[in-house]
Amino acid sequence: MTGPIKVLVWNEGWHEQGDAIVQAIYPDGIHGAIAAGLRGLLGDEVEVRTATLDDPEHGLSEEALASTDVVLWWGHMKHDDVADEVVERVKRHVLGGMGLLVLHSGHYSKIFKTLMGTTCGLSWRNEGEREIVWTVDQTHAIAEGVEQPFVIDAQEMYGEQFDVPPPDELVFVSWFAGGEVFRSGMTFRRGRGKVFYFSPGDQEYPVYFHPQVRRVLANAVRWAVPVAGERVAREAPNQPRTWA
Amino acid sequence: MTGPIKVLVWNEGWHEQGDAIVQAIYPDGIHGAIAAGLRGLLGDEVEVRTATLDDPEHGLSEEALASTDVVLWWGHMKHDDVADEVVERVKRHVLGGMGLLVLHSGHYSKIFKTLMGTTCGLSWRNEGEREIVWTVDQTHAIAEGVEQPFVIDAQEMYGEQFDVPPPDELVFVSWFAGGEVFRSGMTFRRGRGKVFYFSPGDQEYPVYFHPQVRRVLANAVRWAVPVAGERVAREAPNQPRTWA
Amino acid sequence: MTGPIKVLVWNEGWHEQGDAIVQAIYPDGIHGAIAAGLRGLLGDEVEVRTATLDDPEHGLSEEALASTDVVLWWGHMKHDDVADEVVERVKRHVLGGMGLLVLHSGHYSKIFKTLMGTTCGLSWRNEGEREIVWTVDQTHAIAEGVEQPFVIDAQEMYGEQFDVPPPDELVFVSWFAGGEVFRSGMTFRRGRGKVFYFSPGDQEYPVYFHPQVRRVLANAVRWAVPVAGERVAREAPNQPRTWA
Amino acid sequence: MTGPIKVLVWNEGWHEQGDAIVQAIYPDGIHGAIAAGLRGLLGDEVEVRTATLDDPEHGLSEEALASTDVVLWWGHMKHDDVADEVVERVKRHVLGGMGLLVLHSGHYSKIFKTLMGTTCGLSWRNEGEREIVWTVDQTHAIAEGVEQPFVIDAQEMYGEQFDVPPPDELVFVSWFAGGEVFRSGMTFRRGRGKVFYFSPGDQEYPVYFHPQVRRVLANAVRWAVPVAGERVAREAPNQPRTWA
Repeated sequence: MTGPIKVLVWNEGWHEQGDAIVQAIYPDGIHGAIAAGLRGLLGDEVEVRTATLDDPEHGLSEEALASTDVVLWWGHMKHDDVADEVVERVKRHVLGGMGLLVLHSGHYSKIFKTLMGTTCGLSWRNEGEREIVWTVDQTHAIAEGVEQPFVIDAQEMYGEQFDVPPPDELVFVSWFAGGEVFRSGMTFRRGRGKVFYFSPGDQEYPVYFHPQVRRVLANAVRWAVPVAGERVAREAPNQPRTWA
Repeated sequence: MTGPIKVLVWNEGWHEQGDAIVQAIYPDGIHGAIAAGLRGLLGDEVEVRTATLDDPEHGLSEEALASTDVVLWWGHMKHDDVADEVVERVKRHVLGGMGLLVLHSGHYSKIFKTLMGTTCGLSWRNEGEREIVWTVDQTHAIAEGVEQPFVIDAQEMYGEQFDVPPPDELVFVSWFAGGEVFRSGMTFRRGRGKVFYFSPGDQEYPVYFHPQVRRVLANAVRWAVPVAGERVAREAPNQPRTWA
Repeated sequence: MTGPIKVLVWNEGWHEQGDAIVQAIYPDGIHGAIAAGLRGLLGDEVEVRTATLDDPEHGLSEEALASTDVVLWWGHMKHDDVADEVVERVKRHVLGGMGLLVLHSGHYSKIFKTLMGTTCGLSWRNEGEREIVWTVDQTHAIAEGVEQPFVIDAQEMYGEQFDVPPPDELVFVSWFAGGEVFRSGMTFRRGRGKVFYFSPGDQEYPVYFHPQVRRVLANAVRWAVPVAGERVAREAPNQPRTWA
Repeated sequence: MTGPIKVLVWNEGWHEQGDAIVQAIYPDGIHGAIAAGLRGLLGDEVEVRTATLDDPEHGLSEEALASTDVVLWWGHMKHDDVADEVVERVKRHVLGGMGLLVLHSGHYSKIFKTLMGTTCGLSWRNEGEREIVWTVDQTHAIAEGVEQPFVIDAQEMYGEQFDVPPPDELVFVSWFAGGEVFRSGMTFRRGRGKVFYFSPGDQEYPVYFHPQVRRVLANAVRWAVPVAGERVAREAPNQPRTWA
């Protein structure tokens, strides 16, 4: 790739509009905090934009996606308000090669569910519990330089059974004080695109300021960059006899 | 499991209505040939029914699915005529545990595409080429007793890139005379259900009478039987602190 | 398969000879407790024998292995005393199809290390902590009928990073009170054989009497049965042109 | 990583000593041809050295390995002449993070067999057949920019069943004129190291001059670079209670 990685941080941006707790933690929005983390760690290597649900076409127009290498997706209460045609468009771009990082409550987003083919359900509890994140794949680029383990003092619990397909790679597993475990970092290849799901992060806790979380997201942006070649989803070509 | 495995062989049944070639090869329909193969090899171990697109609710009512352990799916020209609500119903049952064997041109069925999350495109050519099917996982129950390799004298070619997620298990790889290869037998776990895709089989060739193909399908039916337990798709339970 | 599954429970049997705590917990030896569990749950479906390090050829002669479908392996202090030629023999049988269940401290056995190709190291602490075992693959035969989760009141802690290859299937993940997680149930296909590693179980705790642990081991025995066919490890045949 | 990738191309170098055919095809040795290919495509990004069996310690001393990021391994007739202690040393470095690319007949090398844990057997035939190499994972860095498919006019046939563990990633599948298929490009994570097996390449055919083969090897070198961090294989630490 030549030039910086073009990153788009997408956030539904709803909690930020009316919830004083969230506003206090994330004065620039969750997307603002994530974008700042990426800019801080990756510098000139990236060109980071943000977009939210309220933007025209949710900020996910054909033009916007065509000039994006990696999308980070944060959503929670407004999954249903994302237009189906926009979801189809994002999906087409992912299958064509665009990287996608799905964050926390994004597990129930339309885009994640349609790429996974499962319910994407999990069990959860919001009591500000300690989460400890363990690397289980020490060769993985997404875990490079990440402390083993790292601790998030207070978090929403996400627990198994997490109903996704078996991942291609399991990178992180989380422990919660209340007794649950969770496969908190997983990769999934879909079409020509790479998808990473990462669960740490919630609107009520300052998780996106955590230096280890920021390191993971920066690593994941690099990992999700498309391989070279046409950015088109697969079709079904009739193939004349050519090779033998 | 107690009692026989309840199997439903589903076929769109369109080619059989007007195509003399297909009628000559499959006088009892593709579904009839598949059902006969299963009954012949599995005997009392199975209870096999068939259904087609023209049946009320395509033969896939809530009642029909609730009393089915494994569905085999054959479709080709009429994928779009399968009602979306029926597809959602089948998907719910698969995620709840029902086994699903997707056959040949079923790669483009709505049910397979929604479970995979990808285009499911491939390259193809219909010139009656030799296909040679190799087992690459000699430990797999679906390959038990299958000849290594087995030859199908004349077949439609299906070739890579096959746009599906990386499979959980790769069981068979096919060779075609024209120079292509294809991952012809693959498993995918989705929710509580097991999915097997198997490409050999076409309306214009008597592939479903081939003894090795019949052996594969019989093995796959046994493999896809749901594990014990509730047949419900996953939800997102709030989990009070219970375990620690 | 016809006839019962032939199971051999192997235990180094060293702790039982001089450690009063272990003798009190396992009056019939660890192997005796495991064998009783299998007989209780599987009845006529299995024929269970036991063997220990002190037996001639450690009870793992060519004849013994040739008439065994599945071996369970428990060792701890005496890994180095297992003769290399016996390890090679067991490996040959596993690659030829014999199932192998490696238990707890067996992670450092010669047979497991040679099949994995890695150090098989992990972190550990023996303070009698609570372990909670979660199923993460609800389709897996080894998890069938197992409570979600199940609790072991006091256990040795085994924690990540567990240095094994990425497993073919991740079935269980454990939580420990001290903050660690562990991939406690994993499958690995090697040659024609199926290998399952299961960590719960220690000489100082009555884990092999736990009904859920017994259920897991019984399920795993069924799962590990060889597929039909010759029980020989792979060679490198020169292949005359035959197929096309 | 700062500075160039330190690459060591290892070749047993036996065919080059007495076989006129090989000498004519590979006047600088197989290692020379591979090294030239890497230098040509990667330029300043790499620093490439070569070593052969006849070098002191086979050119694989502790010092040599400590200053190597990625080893390429070619061997055929002299696998048994590689000293066991050198194999153990290379293994320790791979488990500590050093990348390893195993080429063609290296499938039977001691280092590959000890990392895989299986026989690594396959079927073969040397009749100069056409091989067609298909990419089946279009997201993989090793396939970036590689033609789909690419043709090798004359090659030794390697065919399934290839007795290795199921790979972490299947990148390439090959077709041979005689009817066989082969999983010709596969990745395996072992410890902190990344291993890639790539089958195209033989002493009797000029395969290592093929531009697509050279592209694959250059991509694989980049892919196999260790992640940052200590280059040590895993031990078994007793872990005092620290995290919760």
